[in-house]
Amino acid sequence: MKEYCFGVDIGGTTVKIGLFKTDGNLLEKWEIPTRKENNGYNILPDIAEALKAKMAEKGLTGDDFVGVGLGVPGPVTDDGDVLTAVNLFWGYKEAAKEMKALTGMKTKVGNDANVAALGEAWKGAGEGASNMIMLTLGTGVGGGIVIDGKIVAGSHGAGGEIGHANINHEETQACNCGNSGCLEQYASATGITRLANQYLKKSDKPSVLRSAEEISSRSVFDAYKAGDGLATDIVEDFAERLGGAMAVFACVTDPQVLVIGGGVSNAGQPLIDVISKYYKKYTFQTCKATPIVLATLGNDAGIYGCAKMVIPS
Amino acid sequence: MKEYCFGVDIGGTTVKIGLFKTDGNLLEKWEIPTRKENNGYNILPDIAEALKAKMAEKGLTGDDFVGVGLGVPGPVTDDGDVLTAVNLFWGYKEAAKEMKALTGMKTKVGNDANVAALGEAWKGAGEGASNMIMLTLGTGVGGGIVIDGKIVAGSHGAGGEIGHANINHEETQACNCGNSGCLEQYASATGITRLANQYLKKSDKPSVLRSAEEISSRSVFDAYKAGDGLATDIVEDFAERLGGAMAVFACVTDPQVLVIGGGVSNAGQPLIDVISKYYKKYTFQTCKATPIVLATLGNDAGIYGCAKMVIPS
Repeated sequence: MKEYCFGVDIGGTTVKIGLFKTDGNLLEKWEIPTRKENNGYNILPDIAEALKAKMAEKGLTGDDFVGVGLGVPGPVTDDGDVLTAVNLFWGYKEAAKEMKALTGMKTKVGNDANVAALGEAWKGAGEGASNMIMLTLGTGVGGGIVIDGKIVAGSHGAGGEIGHANINHEETQACNCGNSGCLEQYASATGITRLANQYLKKSDKPSVLRSAEEISSRSVFDAYKAGDGLATDIVEDFAERLGGAMAVFACVTDPQVLVIGGGVSNAGQPLIDVISKYYKKYTFQTCKATPIVLATLGNDAGIYGCAKMVIPS
Repeated sequence: MKEYCFGVDIGGTTVKIGLFKTDGNLLEKWEIPTRKENNGYNILPDIAEALKAKMAEKGLTGDDFVGVGLGVPGPVTDDGDVLTAVNLFWGYKEAAKEMKALTGMKTKVGNDANVAALGEAWKGAGEGASNMIMLTLGTGVGGGIVIDGKIVAGSHGAGGEIGHANINHEETQACNCGNSGCLEQYASATGITRLANQYLKKSDKPSVLRSAEEISSRSVFDAYKAGDGLATDIVEDFAERLGGAMAVFACVTDPQVLVIGGGVSNAGQPLIDVISKYYKKYTFQTCKATPIVLATLGNDAGIYGCAKMVIPS
């Protein structure tokens, strides 16, 4: 009886590993370093060693496992090939095939933002939702689209790349992707800092931010919560752009719930409230009541989603 | 052996009916009037009579049919309940249940724009595509999202309501939906006419449109193809808004192909070329090569999609 699986979320610094029962119970989680030397050659073998050691420790064999789910920071095909993962120094890599060869276990591979969304839809803020949109507001803006309980990987691995939805045709600064006007330029932690610096320059309003040690998404939201006028201008601008973009995404798939995760989401309910105000203003009538909620699994979302990929539904 | 099915596309004026083999072969198609009196009470019974008459004519019985697919101009739940269909004078209606009671055959119901998209994905411009976005540029702008070969109906029947994606927060005129700035206000036949009238007023450029009998999407595109300067301004404006919106939709589901149908698409390849120019400019790198193509099934897209809904895959 195959009752176990591994969820493995490969990040640029550490690999997070979870040992799960197929009912979704997380039995144990731990981390190993991501060894990026030699174009990340050791990453998959290191993971395979870690999994085998855990299986030996628990007296389990491959027969006890439905498989291994891998999350990777880059675009992934339906067959589990990674197109590229710059943070791991990987070029094209047949990750599913390699992992199966290393462990003997069935392997599925997903994009990291996508698997985090799947984790939240399965056991997190969207628990029970078969149709969900997740936005991860971190250094960049990641996204994950869940339809029928499955991730929409997209035909070129770009499903859920909503951080690069172009929301401002007039933008002159370039995004990391090469375009200009991407949602990520306004709604990521970096984007909020950029907006804040623009407001500090163009406005004369007094603000606690003018004497802040550091301008960051966190300092902006702290000032916003304290009622700072300039921080309010910045947050309203950010929220109108993000809520407006989410209103458009909702017209595409009409989700049951929109989930916000990532470092910026540490700002909590005041963040949700201000985004929701603009989302409701701009979205289609039928979607206005769709809830926007905070992610609940934090850094574990990825391993949950990885596990879910290999669990038969 | 169940080898047949009916595809029934209910419009505000006529009901289009197709008799299909389950391999996708359209054997016969015909129309009956849509009787809207008494809140459209007769529509489903009229259809049931038409189907039974055709079955008798062909010597077929319910045992020969996998079922009936219905397309309805309004939001539809996964269970085949119609929330409302104003053009049929229907309020909430358990359409699938009623049709099954009337004919004895399994019935599935979909939104008309969605089933047209499914038809194009099955046997039309997107043949073979399991991941597709269709836009129907008619009086309004309809949409249909196909993922994994199935329509995304959405959790409130609003999947693919991309005509109401808000693309201009500054718009002051209201859309029929109650919001302001919807894609439909710029990219429908009505929207193109509205844009044209705005340009005729605000610009001094000479134009054949100034002496046109009627300003319409068609007259604008005819003038555009003839090289008229003002018509070019109008079409470029339209195309930048539409291509820009499609660039955003593509970041959500990363389709294999984007299909353009509806009356406006009669403008043909020059329409596709000008939309593609702006789509490529604004979309995410990975999606820039995604083709935009003209729908090929015309008014038959709906009956094809209706049939597809009931054919087991």
